[in-house]
Amino acid sequence: MTATAKPTLAEVATRAGVSTATASRALSRSTRVSREARTAVEQAVADLGYVRHRAPRAGSRDTGAVAVVVCEDMLHYQSDLFYSRLLVAVERALAPHERELLVLTALRHTSRPSLLRFLRGGHVDGVILVGLRGDDALPRLLRAADVPVVSMGRPPGGAEVPFVDADNVGGAAEAVRYLQSRGRRRIATIAGPADMSVGVDRLTGYRRAVRLTGTAREIVAHGDFTVASGDHAMMRLLDRCPGVDAVFAASDPMAAGALRALTRLGVHVPDDIALIGFGDDALARRTSPRLTTVRQPVEDMGARAVTELVGGGPVPGRVVMGTQLVVRQSA
Amino acid sequence: MTATAKPTLAEVATRAGVSTATASRALSRSTRVSREARTAVEQAVADLGYVRHRAPRAGSRDTGAVAVVVCEDMLHYQSDLFYSRLLVAVERALAPHERELLVLTALRHTSRPSLLRFLRGGHVDGVILVGLRGDDALPRLLRAADVPVVSMGRPPGGAEVPFVDADNVGGAAEAVRYLQSRGRRRIATIAGPADMSVGVDRLTGYRRAVRLTGTAREIVAHGDFTVASGDHAMMRLLDRCPGVDAVFAASDPMAAGALRALTRLGVHVPDDIALIGFGDDALARRTSPRLTTVRQPVEDMGARAVTELVGGGPVPGRVVMGTQLVVRQSA
Repeated sequence: MTATAKPTLAEVATRAGVSTATASRALSRSTRVSREARTAVEQAVADLGYVRHRAPRAGSRDTGAVAVVVCEDMLHYQSDLFYSRLLVAVERALAPHERELLVLTALRHTSRPSLLRFLRGGHVDGVILVGLRGDDALPRLLRAADVPVVSMGRPPGGAEVPFVDADNVGGAAEAVRYLQSRGRRRIATIAGPADMSVGVDRLTGYRRAVRLTGTAREIVAHGDFTVASGDHAMMRLLDRCPGVDAVFAASDPMAAGALRALTRLGVHVPDDIALIGFGDDALARRTSPRLTTVRQPVEDMGARAVTELVGGGPVPGRVVMGTQLVVRQSA
Repeated sequence: MTATAKPTLAEVATRAGVSTATASRALSRSTRVSREARTAVEQAVADLGYVRHRAPRAGSRDTGAVAVVVCEDMLHYQSDLFYSRLLVAVERALAPHERELLVLTALRHTSRPSLLRFLRGGHVDGVILVGLRGDDALPRLLRAADVPVVSMGRPPGGAEVPFVDADNVGGAAEAVRYLQSRGRRRIATIAGPADMSVGVDRLTGYRRAVRLTGTAREIVAHGDFTVASGDHAMMRLLDRCPGVDAVFAASDPMAAGALRALTRLGVHVPDDIALIGFGDDALARRTSPRLTTVRQPVEDMGARAVTELVGGGPVPGRVVMGTQLVVRQSA
């Protein structure tokens, strides 16, 4: 090695006292590297004057942007605080990677030619898909074009795409078990759309908990995650099952809608009907009474998706993050 | 000319009975062409089998996307219905051009390297800037890189960039004159930020109308266009000027905030204090009482910006669209 030879990653690793793999991860800003190792690697890079060459990953590119495709109507997307939380998280996670966040919406038109053309045209380093419905071809088409993809939430229809999700089944079951533990016996659910995995999984969790009791029957009305649909579903539930004493709504906006209907009818929450939402968005702290809800780690989910897409980590496969019941006033 | 020669634009114009310039504008979907001329040109195109070749404009490109850069915090952006209206309008206007809408947010960091790198990197056909503040360098940097730019709203600091705006001065003055015509004498304003042209211009309109009366004095409190800032500004106004009998708020969210403060204090709107907002977003129809407000033609403004950016029309220069006072219940 002459004095002018470029230092190698192995030399950086040796100087930092870590393995080459750890040095690589540290340079990729992976979260799986200790602070000590990262500091040592950064010092070694500075000492040696090492210049990083990105490993040629499949689909690796450097356009300076990551796209979030929200499979939702623009107006609903703008009104649902879940998306705010997620996008703020993604934006923050992208900043150290010097990548811009591009938001695109695509309700039921995810295969439109212009969207595919742009996403496959070399303009983005990766795509985060949010709210996929039914048997959407978009994940398959993007992967076929070597565009790195992560789905926020388990993709419906069994699409073979890496995803980051919350434990929707476990979180929903915990909410229902909590209602049971408080003596509630006729527990209904306002479920999400049947063509979205987040709708299916939270309903599955409700069903598991209800069936465990052996006697209770399932009481289900569907909504579309909006406040208005929660209001309407609550009215249908009261019509069909006047004796209901608790409701698990599969999203905070639907819980807020159910609360609006109950308040309008003079039904007291939680004394007459206990109510639990799902999400723990800012909305849950704005209702009166404030919502007991299942907190999903949206911030961590967004950061994890970014790490896997542009942080240089391995393809994540299936990441399911834990939820937490947050008890406030509505149950 | 042989039977197989391609027809020219001049031949289309001759057949349609219009000038070549008008034929070109009609094909560019410019709004400055009469319906009759457009129909005649379209018929001539069909008759002759004319195939349009886009004129090579400076910065002309075809990436398949237009970026809207919202100079706003992500959470505020997500909560303000003005942006929903605008983005829906832009999305609709882009669809026939088969361009995707990319939304980026950039509060006080519009010159960050990653944003410039992406926008100048050949990934977008044009950029619509929304909510520029102060002496932002972004318009100048984009134009220097031959990226087509339109500002939504007059750019502050005199930046040389084409823009589409509402008549903020005229709309504000009309609101104040309406309050005067209803016998109000102590009319205050909740103005927007002083570093945004939309804040400055609506305050200018208020001042013009107040000064015309010769005797009335100006009563001004500033907000930042959010509901919370309208609430706080209303409290300050009541402290400083207990005799105020009308308020012109420079945005609907600020008017809703002022209404919240007045309702909390038991002040009746409009009997005690008349209130007018600006925007006519969906929010104006959701408050109680419903807001009298100045309607700005956001849908037309968004469509016009798109036409000028990707519709092949000439650079627009300065487009100022009229506003309309919508009288409801609050004044």
